[in-house]
Amino acid sequence: MKTLYFITGNKGKLLEAKKRFSKINFEIIQKDIGYPEIQADSLEEVALFGVNDIQKRFDKPFFLEDAGLFIDSLNGFPGVYSAYVFYKIGCSGILKLMEKYEGNKRKACFRSVIVYKGLNKDPEIFIGESYGLISKISIGDYGFGYDPIFIPENEKRTFAQMETDEKNRFSHRGKSLNKLINYIKN
Amino acid sequence: MKTLYFITGNKGKLLEAKKRFSKINFEIIQKDIGYPEIQADSLEEVALFGVNDIQKRFDKPFFLEDAGLFIDSLNGFPGVYSAYVFYKIGCSGILKLMEKYEGNKRKACFRSVIVYKGLNKDPEIFIGESYGLISKISIGDYGFGYDPIFIPENEKRTFAQMETDEKNRFSHRGKSLNKLINYIKN
Repeated sequence: MKTLYFITGNKGKLLEAKKRFSKINFEIIQKDIGYPEIQADSLEEVALFGVNDIQKRFDKPFFLEDAGLFIDSLNGFPGVYSAYVFYKIGCSGILKLMEKYEGNKRKACFRSVIVYKGLNKDPEIFIGESYGLISKISIGDYGFGYDPIFIPENEKRTFAQMETDEKNRFSHRGKSLNKLINYIKN
Repeated sequence: MKTLYFITGNKGKLLEAKKRFSKINFEIIQKDIGYPEIQADSLEEVALFGVNDIQKRFDKPFFLEDAGLFIDSLNGFPGVYSAYVFYKIGCSGILKLMEKYEGNKRKACFRSVIVYKGLNKDPEIFIGESYGLISKISIGDYGFGYDPIFIPENEKRTFAQMETDEKNRFSHRGKSLNKLINYIKN
């Protein structure tokens, strides 16, 4: 079985990647070595900055991922700082900010950016997006982060009401992981 | 008249520094050259990282400042990312998140961290804090950022209801600027 390193401290992300890669007989190994995250306008900038830092001190093929929830009516908030905002005000804070919005005004997009760094290769970027709505209440026990308040398109349930395999089928991270897998297979 | 460079793109901060330094016959010159801001837990880390970046490409004495509003009931939110959060959800977003809190539950602290880099010297850090309450409504025409919703201790008016000179007397940035001035004078 081949192995690939995932630089992350997030158990939820790790589980999603493990599940997805097991289908092509790849073992994902967590490497929680941290990296500086810059305050930037895009997830891509944050992830690339991280890869440049890590490649100086880690010499095996690896990838990292940065994700964010971008809510239309909040000008893309919490966006690039989704993790920080979640830690501070949680799903309840977001629901509070969204109280006055109805229907299409609750549109949001989950974005996932994976940067893969193979040996002696330039970094490769894989992007996955999932469009949907912010729910009216927080619901569901699976997943992590904003999963309990995000209902993907053509669904009535939040991400947190889906088990990992099902969420992976159409989640932002499922899509970016698929792109990475296709790249690695070829 | 002596001169000192202030690395900032913020006109409001520039005005406060100019006013304060004019009293000791120093001219503050704005230098809007930007620097990478890391996602960190403290303003000090962000500011020091910036100074280390700038000193590689700017060889005159300079200072920069990073500030944030830390609200007790929101676990210190918006904190280190105050500028980003302001840009996305503004004072109205903060007031929304604070709706259910009364009295002492509206406590907040404005922090200002200045890092000064003299020629051939290690960076020096100066911290200023101003404690107060988040107001119930946004009010006042002066200042910038969260000034219209912050009422400092022993006051009934927000920072945005005070002209620059008055705000400087007891604002977080007034205090950190005072410390920098005392350091430079001696």
